[in-house]
Amino acid sequence: MSSDRIRPRTLKGFRDFLPDLAAAREWIIDTAKTVYRSYGFLPIDTPVLEYTEILLGKGGDESDRQMYRFEDHGGRDVAMRFDLTVPLARFVAQHAGTLGMPFKRYHVGPVWRGENTQRGRYREFMQFDFDTIGTTSVVSDVETVLVVVELARALGLEDATVRFNHRGVLSGLLERLDLADHTTSVLRGLDKLSKIGTERVSEEIAGTTGATPAQIDEILALGQTTGSPDEVLDRVGAMVAGTESGVAGVQRLADVVSGLEAAGADAGEYALDVSIARGLDYYTGLVYETFLDETPGIGSISSGGRYDDLAGIYTTQELPGIGGSLGVDRLLAAFEELGRIGESSASATVLLTLFAEDRRDDHLAVAGELRRSGVAVEVYPDARKLGVQLRYADRRGHRFAVIIGDTEWEAGTAQLKELASGESHEVPRGDLAATISRLGGGGGPADREG
Amino acid sequence: MSSDRIRPRTLKGFRDFLPDLAAAREWIIDTAKTVYRSYGFLPIDTPVLEYTEILLGKGGDESDRQMYRFEDHGGRDVAMRFDLTVPLARFVAQHAGTLGMPFKRYHVGPVWRGENTQRGRYREFMQFDFDTIGTTSVVSDVETVLVVVELARALGLEDATVRFNHRGVLSGLLERLDLADHTTSVLRGLDKLSKIGTERVSEEIAGTTGATPAQIDEILALGQTTGSPDEVLDRVGAMVAGTESGVAGVQRLADVVSGLEAAGADAGEYALDVSIARGLDYYTGLVYETFLDETPGIGSISSGGRYDDLAGIYTTQELPGIGGSLGVDRLLAAFEELGRIGESSASATVLLTLFAEDRRDDHLAVAGELRRSGVAVEVYPDARKLGVQLRYADRRGHRFAVIIGDTEWEAGTAQLKELASGESHEVPRGDLAATISRLGGGGGPADREG
Repeated sequence: MSSDRIRPRTLKGFRDFLPDLAAAREWIIDTAKTVYRSYGFLPIDTPVLEYTEILLGKGGDESDRQMYRFEDHGGRDVAMRFDLTVPLARFVAQHAGTLGMPFKRYHVGPVWRGENTQRGRYREFMQFDFDTIGTTSVVSDVETVLVVVELARALGLEDATVRFNHRGVLSGLLERLDLADHTTSVLRGLDKLSKIGTERVSEEIAGTTGATPAQIDEILALGQTTGSPDEVLDRVGAMVAGTESGVAGVQRLADVVSGLEAAGADAGEYALDVSIARGLDYYTGLVYETFLDETPGIGSISSGGRYDDLAGIYTTQELPGIGGSLGVDRLLAAFEELGRIGESSASATVLLTLFAEDRRDDHLAVAGELRRSGVAVEVYPDARKLGVQLRYADRRGHRFAVIIGDTEWEAGTAQLKELASGESHEVPRGDLAATISRLGGGGGPADREG
Repeated sequence: MSSDRIRPRTLKGFRDFLPDLAAAREWIIDTAKTVYRSYGFLPIDTPVLEYTEILLGKGGDESDRQMYRFEDHGGRDVAMRFDLTVPLARFVAQHAGTLGMPFKRYHVGPVWRGENTQRGRYREFMQFDFDTIGTTSVVSDVETVLVVVELARALGLEDATVRFNHRGVLSGLLERLDLADHTTSVLRGLDKLSKIGTERVSEEIAGTTGATPAQIDEILALGQTTGSPDEVLDRVGAMVAGTESGVAGVQRLADVVSGLEAAGADAGEYALDVSIARGLDYYTGLVYETFLDETPGIGSISSGGRYDDLAGIYTTQELPGIGGSLGVDRLLAAFEELGRIGESSASATVLLTLFAEDRRDDHLAVAGELRRSGVAVEVYPDARKLGVQLRYADRRGHRFAVIIGDTEWEAGTAQLKELASGESHEVPRGDLAATISRLGGGGGPADREG
């Protein structure tokens, strides 16, 4: 047998989630679902595998190269999805009649890209998108920002800022500079500003667009406009004056700022930031990114924007919309940096220890009573030394251990041990549930998080 | 453009989840997670893609043939998982030192099998497993049954029965009949009893094992033993008397029945059923299946059993355990039959309708106030006719619509419409949240299910 043994290992670029990390990810996802739902978004799901022609060419050359693509049992050319946006476009085009518009959905699931893993990225990672489709309304723009603000709050990320801009601002400037045909190249260049700096971005834009140094200075100056929202709108408004897309973009930004103020969002939670570019030329209106002050190296934890036409490649129906994506793996990395992994890994509230096989049914009866009172209980399965069982409880994050030895069985009592403090209470067995509840552990499974 | 348009469609054997179905599945999964966690199970996750040699040969020839297998960008032979048990074995072998034993985990995710779709099956389906590894304890057997009983309750499936048996019973009989070498063939035959009937099963067993008609009668008689748990244990005990595995199996069943009674499980929720075979020869102890009286055609919604050695192919460490799998797609099919899809599809509690673009900020302010009071609100994004917006609310399952027209703006009031009854209340805007709460919709996102 040993010669046939296979070495257990994962593929390069893929990883297992052990309980601490898996529980943290589950908590992030559940928290986001609750927020999305409370704003009227509904869940959908699509298959991991699609016809290759559905996915190919939708994410650019790099996506095409990185796609996991193969022939299935029926000789079909199939591929694993590399994002959730292309499947959404296919989905909405296919089911538009049934769904009705506006359509607000969220979708969480893994996606795959055969990337170079040396950049510390995974080839399988989790995306969590939300989109509002079938409307060009300012309300949707405002609510998209609000959802991210509320999500950051719900995740306990008080230092998050949603930074947004409008594509029309840059388009207006490029129109004025007679560089409108080079929008994509300029966007790709600006998107690298924080990574490679002003000088190299200037060189790149000059090389790809033929812009003069004076033009490039104007482009870079636009992105460096700072101040209060009103000040930024004034200054940027002057730069794009007379251009259709620039004026419309500035007006839309003013409407969004006004809506956010009306909704009562805290000024520290969002910011108008005309340096936000987002590399994808897919976006046509509002674009946003979300940064954490405490963990700047993580990058944006949620990004997105407005588009004019989600699914033109699949349908004649014009489907404008706005959406965002939550970077679940980036959030996990931030939580790791902040030492917050493990917070939500606790399992049952109580570990009921076991010492004697002939008391097994008695223990199961105590567990049954506690469960009927709403207390989450795990029964240690084997009669082992107390130290072993308490170490198990420490490791798994139970809040209490219940210990019933011969003395306690005879006295009709139980020892209730608080594992954080080590404090023990001897209580009548009939009072166990009430005592646990009084000590803050009675709310059943739901009380184990937060 | 239209000549380049791609027809939006899913692959044969794959399906999209529209909001009603996706919300129902999400509710099933969340409910199961809560129950698993409350018994001490913790989440894990593993990659969808594994080295093919990790998966190959672990599920039998059929699994091997149905596997989605291909070469990745680095020339590796990789495959998509076809279940969650083989990845669990690999995971536990790889991380045993870190995990500690006993190890209780749950794992939910899609798996892929390139099956013949004419049987109404999907090539991508969701599995949801829970396992207790590193112990042979009776407690784990009892708690496995209890978890399924509690899960059925939590899902509102009052008609579910967990039917369990022990592999040792059949082994004992076959040992007595001198057919122990043919255990696998007999199991495969018995597993088909409900599908092809006694006669064809007899023929099949005779053909594969060479058993005499008298022997086959004894085998079939074993599976047809009915009565109270004590009666069944007595009768079966007599049939396997004198055989090591038979006596041990009957004893273990008696211990499990006693534990379930001690834990206070309701006798209608579980049953000792010696006809339960489970085709996989992987199981060595308790085996169980779970049937619904109201939807018998669905088959078992949760099945599993005890095994001696989870991961012998990857490690020298012996890892006994017991586990079960929840058939999420089968449960969805049952919910469809029972007309229960749509129960949990409601999104926000309130739809705030919108009539005039120049009142947009006022509406956003009302939404902000309601949200700060814990009411989940969706703002309709566009100023459209009331009928259109109310139809939207009906379709999405909101419980209330809030309507504020010019008259109400001036009077400082709002119309609150209960969508199920059509009843309207005119309330001061400052009392909206309290009124919604009084009418049963105030609990925020959490109150929308159950």
